[in-house]
Amino acid sequence: MSGSKAYAALIEFVQQTSLLSSASALLSWDQETGMPPGGGDARARQLALLGRLQHERQTDPRMADWLQACAADETLAADPVAAANVRELQRDHARATKLPGALVAALAETESRAQQAWAEARTRSDFAAFAPWLQKLLHLHQQKADCLRAPTQSRWDALADLFEPGLTAAALHRWFLPLRARLVELRQRLAAGTRPADGIQQVALPQPAQEAFVRAVIGAMGFDFQRGRLDRSAHPFCTGTLGDVRLTTRFHDALVLDALGSTMHEAGHGLYEQGLPEAHAGTPLAEACSLGIHESQSRFWENHVGRSRAFWHWCQPLLQRHFGAAAAAFSTDDLWRTANIVEPSLIRVEADEATYDLHVMIRCELEVALLAGDLPVGDLPAAWNRAYADYLGVQVPDDRRGCLQDVHWSCGLFGYFPTYTLGNLYAAQFAAALQRDLPVDDLVARGEFAPLRSWLQAHVHAHGRRYPPAELCVRATGSPLSAEPFLAYLDRKFTAVYQVR
Amino acid sequence: MSGSKAYAALIEFVQQTSLLSSASALLSWDQETGMPPGGGDARARQLALLGRLQHERQTDPRMADWLQACAADETLAADPVAAANVRELQRDHARATKLPGALVAALAETESRAQQAWAEARTRSDFAAFAPWLQKLLHLHQQKADCLRAPTQSRWDALADLFEPGLTAAALHRWFLPLRARLVELRQRLAAGTRPADGIQQVALPQPAQEAFVRAVIGAMGFDFQRGRLDRSAHPFCTGTLGDVRLTTRFHDALVLDALGSTMHEAGHGLYEQGLPEAHAGTPLAEACSLGIHESQSRFWENHVGRSRAFWHWCQPLLQRHFGAAAAAFSTDDLWRTANIVEPSLIRVEADEATYDLHVMIRCELEVALLAGDLPVGDLPAAWNRAYADYLGVQVPDDRRGCLQDVHWSCGLFGYFPTYTLGNLYAAQFAAALQRDLPVDDLVARGEFAPLRSWLQAHVHAHGRRYPPAELCVRATGSPLSAEPFLAYLDRKFTAVYQVR
Repeated sequence: MSGSKAYAALIEFVQQTSLLSSASALLSWDQETGMPPGGGDARARQLALLGRLQHERQTDPRMADWLQACAADETLAADPVAAANVRELQRDHARATKLPGALVAALAETESRAQQAWAEARTRSDFAAFAPWLQKLLHLHQQKADCLRAPTQSRWDALADLFEPGLTAAALHRWFLPLRARLVELRQRLAAGTRPADGIQQVALPQPAQEAFVRAVIGAMGFDFQRGRLDRSAHPFCTGTLGDVRLTTRFHDALVLDALGSTMHEAGHGLYEQGLPEAHAGTPLAEACSLGIHESQSRFWENHVGRSRAFWHWCQPLLQRHFGAAAAAFSTDDLWRTANIVEPSLIRVEADEATYDLHVMIRCELEVALLAGDLPVGDLPAAWNRAYADYLGVQVPDDRRGCLQDVHWSCGLFGYFPTYTLGNLYAAQFAAALQRDLPVDDLVARGEFAPLRSWLQAHVHAHGRRYPPAELCVRATGSPLSAEPFLAYLDRKFTAVYQVR
Repeated sequence: MSGSKAYAALIEFVQQTSLLSSASALLSWDQETGMPPGGGDARARQLALLGRLQHERQTDPRMADWLQACAADETLAADPVAAANVRELQRDHARATKLPGALVAALAETESRAQQAWAEARTRSDFAAFAPWLQKLLHLHQQKADCLRAPTQSRWDALADLFEPGLTAAALHRWFLPLRARLVELRQRLAAGTRPADGIQQVALPQPAQEAFVRAVIGAMGFDFQRGRLDRSAHPFCTGTLGDVRLTTRFHDALVLDALGSTMHEAGHGLYEQGLPEAHAGTPLAEACSLGIHESQSRFWENHVGRSRAFWHWCQPLLQRHFGAAAAAFSTDDLWRTANIVEPSLIRVEADEATYDLHVMIRCELEVALLAGDLPVGDLPAAWNRAYADYLGVQVPDDRRGCLQDVHWSCGLFGYFPTYTLGNLYAAQFAAALQRDLPVDDLVARGEFAPLRSWLQAHVHAHGRRYPPAELCVRATGSPLSAEPFLAYLDRKFTAVYQVR
């Protein structure tokens, strides 16, 4: 078969496979937003079947033949679109075929049961009940890493590469080292400053008005409701792609800034998905580059826009329009400061911008040690609690609020956590590049978000998986990823908010 | 392979296939209720792919082997559950394999394009623009019928059998003959009576209150919201099965009885789906018996319950509770009479109980003639208009309100229309049997619907496709289907409402 014929067959095949995955995504979305409880059993079986059909297609022997024919074709190699698609499909195919069926089945079964065990153990704050499951999961993921890794690659690196192509523990260490020291130092410096008032966060506001308000904000950001939806779910998320991107969020009677932050965060993910190139739908070039890059888009809108003084200049009148007298007491400055309260805490998902990454670093260091066999599972709680005292200055009262708080390890997500911090670093570096190209503060203060969105679309979204994340970063910002823009940003903002030096 | 092994493999296989079909149903539901416009293209491709995968499974050569092994096994033949499943799966498999792939593709393509042509032709009331499509569809359905039919079976009978197993034009004629004469006679008699006032139908009521009201009614009927949902869509429908049954309805600012009727109708379908036997999920024994039987369940709740005097005795206070002063002016009798206004009209979907079946009969007679080649396509509008003058006494002003009003033929649904009338006949016969067994009016007047639902569950829902519809009717009611119970019911009710003899 000629290279061009193989390429056409390959693309047609993966586009069909992507329909199965988008159908699964819709079924999962429905499960989290509206499915009646009675639908759970059938839904699990539908998703398992569609997952199996996807895996069958990903490992279809024809895939290997097509990929081989494409790789041997010089015309394809010279076409940047085809070359990138072939490279990424080769990567996906290799990953799918390297794992023996028995291991895949054992992982699926163990992860499903471990999640239930974790949920029960967390409720009772009983680490001992979860420890054997964590041990089994580690053992299976060591095997998984051994199947995936190149001869010189470490296990953790092989697993992290699934989420952030090219990421290594060594590179992570280079970013984390300055980050840790300076975040701890910042935390200590802010403790001596003036904590902002809780202000608007304490005010009970009608949930329908909160929903109208956050819809207005993400509409202004450019989230396209003709190609997407916003619904409610227990935990906010974003799913779908291109013409049908679905966000969820949640509301409390008070804490309107939490609803706003969550919604802007998910809308940032959503703008990425809506900004992928339609012409390449169903192929890697219309898929997100990495989880770290995805997270950078959510954190950019949530933090660099949504927690900026300029944003509140625009948003304060909008808030008043939606909530009337209840919001009138709060000035632009009040709202901006309240949105930037720093509070070292026990729980990652509730953490602020200045301490969030300390939570992530703790997890990364511990999972590297767990996977390498340097930290016995039984020692995890003590190591966790020590790190929290050390990094965040807080005492962990129980494992429920300690090493049992996150679902990730019970789902087999080892090597996933760093993508949260990479998202923050990428976001700050993109924000700095944006500020060089555009008068960002002026635009945000006027609610003119379109130029920001267009910049991100052109420099990030439009490329899909065309470049690996490290290369995308250099192309978009002119430099390799560094922690400096993030640290400079935090320092600038929080010394102003807390009125310290 | 032994019969029992083949049966186990067969059941496992069809249960998996049913997961694809329930996944498709959810995707279609989402398309009608919440999908953003931008999702349309991908959704069409997802549904086409899932449809193809289902068809591949239905025609899988292993199916034939398993079915053959099962048919040869005497133990299976003696087991009523297995025997019924094998019989019905044999039926489905034969149907799926009898049609050549090229014909299936031509039908799908032509129906898809004909629907668009029909929608445009209807908007412009331009039958000539649709005529060539109808001609093509007839030609293809004649071929389809020739593939499906037994040597002595007519084409129309072969197509109708897809929707109502065992139905023949000859049997239909035997029901229709008395029906037509007496419905026309009833229509004329009522014209001399006292037309009820429009009453509550003219009152604008807030749509959220209408929704709360209809939810209360179908909740009282026993629709289980833990295993189902109610949403809005342009055209009401019911989809899903067992643990996840989804109804849709619609609201206008006035016309609350239309919203109620539509919702009770769909909830009747929904109770059937929720009442199918869970133990047989994914097999024919947990599927509806026929479209006629399905329609009987919707019409029973919509008409025999929802338009009865007893129902309004219970419902009038409920209406007041939901709408307050706006509803207080209407007595039980006012509401009951308004719910039973008879008005010969042009449009089937807006027709009342006493004239609806005249619309259906016109379509059945015309499609039998079209398929047999006795009526040239070009003569359809004139024949249609003549029949409307003759049966309903109305003049058809244009084809938009005439032979272009229904989507069915453009979708290739030939032989489908009679199931609407069969639904009315079955419903009346079930209602008569129920009245012999239970004090139906007393129960309904107290809002005690559970015994009615239980009767229907035991006599209809629990059987799935275990018996063909004609046999189910005899088992449930003691007699073969007849038009008499329906005619007696109409006569009894409408002479009272219209105060005629």
